[in-house]
Amino acid sequence: MLPWLSGLAADPGRVHTEGHVARAAVEGAREQVAALVGARPREVVFTSGATEAINAVAFGCADRGAQALAPVEHSAVRDAAARAGEVVALPVDGLGRVSVDDIALDGVGLVHCQWANHEVATVQPVAAVAEAARAAGTLVHVDAAAAVGHVALAFADMPVDLVSLSGHKFGGPQGTGALLVRRGLRLPPFVVGGDQERARRAGLENVAAIVGLGAAAEAVGASTADEAARARQQTDALLAAALAVDGVVAYGDTRDRVPHIVCVGVEGVEAEAVLLGLDQAGVAAHSGSACSSESLEPSPVLAAMGVDAERSLRLSVGWSTTDAEIAAFTRAFADVVARLRALRA
Amino acid sequence: MLPWLSGLAADPGRVHTEGHVARAAVEGAREQVAALVGARPREVVFTSGATEAINAVAFGCADRGAQALAPVEHSAVRDAAARAGEVVALPVDGLGRVSVDDIALDGVGLVHCQWANHEVATVQPVAAVAEAARAAGTLVHVDAAAAVGHVALAFADMPVDLVSLSGHKFGGPQGTGALLVRRGLRLPPFVVGGDQERARRAGLENVAAIVGLGAAAEAVGASTADEAARARQQTDALLAAALAVDGVVAYGDTRDRVPHIVCVGVEGVEAEAVLLGLDQAGVAAHSGSACSSESLEPSPVLAAMGVDAERSLRLSVGWSTTDAEIAAFTRAFADVVARLRALRA
Repeated sequence: MLPWLSGLAADPGRVHTEGHVARAAVEGAREQVAALVGARPREVVFTSGATEAINAVAFGCADRGAQALAPVEHSAVRDAAARAGEVVALPVDGLGRVSVDDIALDGVGLVHCQWANHEVATVQPVAAVAEAARAAGTLVHVDAAAAVGHVALAFADMPVDLVSLSGHKFGGPQGTGALLVRRGLRLPPFVVGGDQERARRAGLENVAAIVGLGAAAEAVGASTADEAARARQQTDALLAAALAVDGVVAYGDTRDRVPHIVCVGVEGVEAEAVLLGLDQAGVAAHSGSACSSESLEPSPVLAAMGVDAERSLRLSVGWSTTDAEIAAFTRAFADVVARLRALRA
Repeated sequence: MLPWLSGLAADPGRVHTEGHVARAAVEGAREQVAALVGARPREVVFTSGATEAINAVAFGCADRGAQALAPVEHSAVRDAAARAGEVVALPVDGLGRVSVDDIALDGVGLVHCQWANHEVATVQPVAAVAEAARAAGTLVHVDAAAAVGHVALAFADMPVDLVSLSGHKFGGPQGTGALLVRRGLRLPPFVVGGDQERARRAGLENVAAIVGLGAAAEAVGASTADEAARARQQTDALLAAALAVDGVVAYGDTRDRVPHIVCVGVEGVEAEAVLLGLDQAGVAAHSGSACSSESLEPSPVLAAMGVDAERSLRLSVGWSTTDAEIAAFTRAFADVVARLRALRA
């Protein structure tokens, strides 16, 4: 990314040499991202992040009828769909998984179905949901932000129309994402005012970030299986360490899950206090609450699963997580919980 | 920006130490941007660029009635306003300046008025337009993308409600911008799905880019007058060199203009051919056509001024432009035009 943040910065839409060089870099990154997700390069639209991509989907499909989604979807999907018009709720089970047998799609124009849950890691039955959607004649959008780079994903083979993804979730820079748009599908643009991205997303291309996204896609694409195995091992260790403490339970599907996330509930103490205790031990964890803040609002994901959200912790690993960091959690967690419970007693 | 692209990358919305450090960086950048434009930090909403900020304005004001704008506004303003609903055209004169005496604002809920034109550099009578808008009870949005960093601008003293700006236009990174929202004004968010930016713009903050935007704002804020004087001198030299060639005319107001842009028309040759000739001489210039591509569509700016857009060139300088580059243009321009005319003859 560095050259693009300094001397090479240019507008890829221009005819001068600097513009052509920037254009080539953007198109190279598009091929890298397409390769990671098994899509054609022309199906990749760069955005400022998954949130924008998801807004583009919900907004662009607003005229197609109601939008169906489970309450375990990310707040970006829930809020963007609610703004677009009528929302139809899809049922979920106690693991946060969409109950395919019970979905009804009358009057629905678009079904949102995440690839995997961002808080409890449960993998969704995307193929079955998509089959039901196709039978009902509706489009399907998959929020794959919690999955891309962590599991193999082939857009060409998926019976879905739209996929959103986030760069920083797999080692790319913040401020990048992409929307995959099935060839032939015309989606009105969300950000208008220029013909960038084949008139699908206006605004000067963020060349440096796009180049970084492409590089991350290529790196993670070459090592997804290895990364997944390591992440699985690390999160299995996190989960085992957490469950070894009395009154700790696992949320979501601990087997059929994305490899880099686990979610646990801790009886008798507030999540925020645990987070602060872990932070003192050098461990950055995340409560099972809203994405945008550690608000005290209960997580809609856990509420939909019938779980007490105020006691939940989301533990995740990334490409840079070391086994030493896993060991630091293992050492700290029992102590933090014991201290908090003692204070409370 | 470098630390934020590597080890320090974190979500500013989290309670862990990494999150707090990122939050402090974002808020520091907010103070830097606020200082540059004379706003309160809380009035600054970070976006992925001016295009998104402009979309947020037009979308957020869609329920307020028609939107008034001159045809010389940037395509982002024109397209976003057209999507929001009814558009009322403001008249312009032959220099591309809004004719304040002739504007009528019946049924208008929002007036867009750029600070300065992005193609011909003409400074707009923002204060007079804002006065007329205030008298009519409508909000005012100023697209200041072509002005911020190049002229002094004090939001606190401007009788306007919303200002959009672009980071890369004054030395910040691509993929950044901001919307200034007057204290007390509630604008529905454009990108929804998270409470970032005080629930005014959802999506993980692009920390590195925001830090870069802040640094650029501080740097340019400390040297705006010097930069403007240098840019004015350089563009005066560009203009003089261009006008020394027979059949070259200036477009826009060459006196009351932003210092870093001039626009000229070249009789008898296509703009694109001149661009390519200049490119061979190492000069990256820009035709007076659409922002997002060197399309053959005539520029609406020049069309509104009654000018033949296919013959126009936009010449601009930035903080990194050297006098040697100005000299390179001066050496090349007459030759390029003469060669093209000879080919045609």
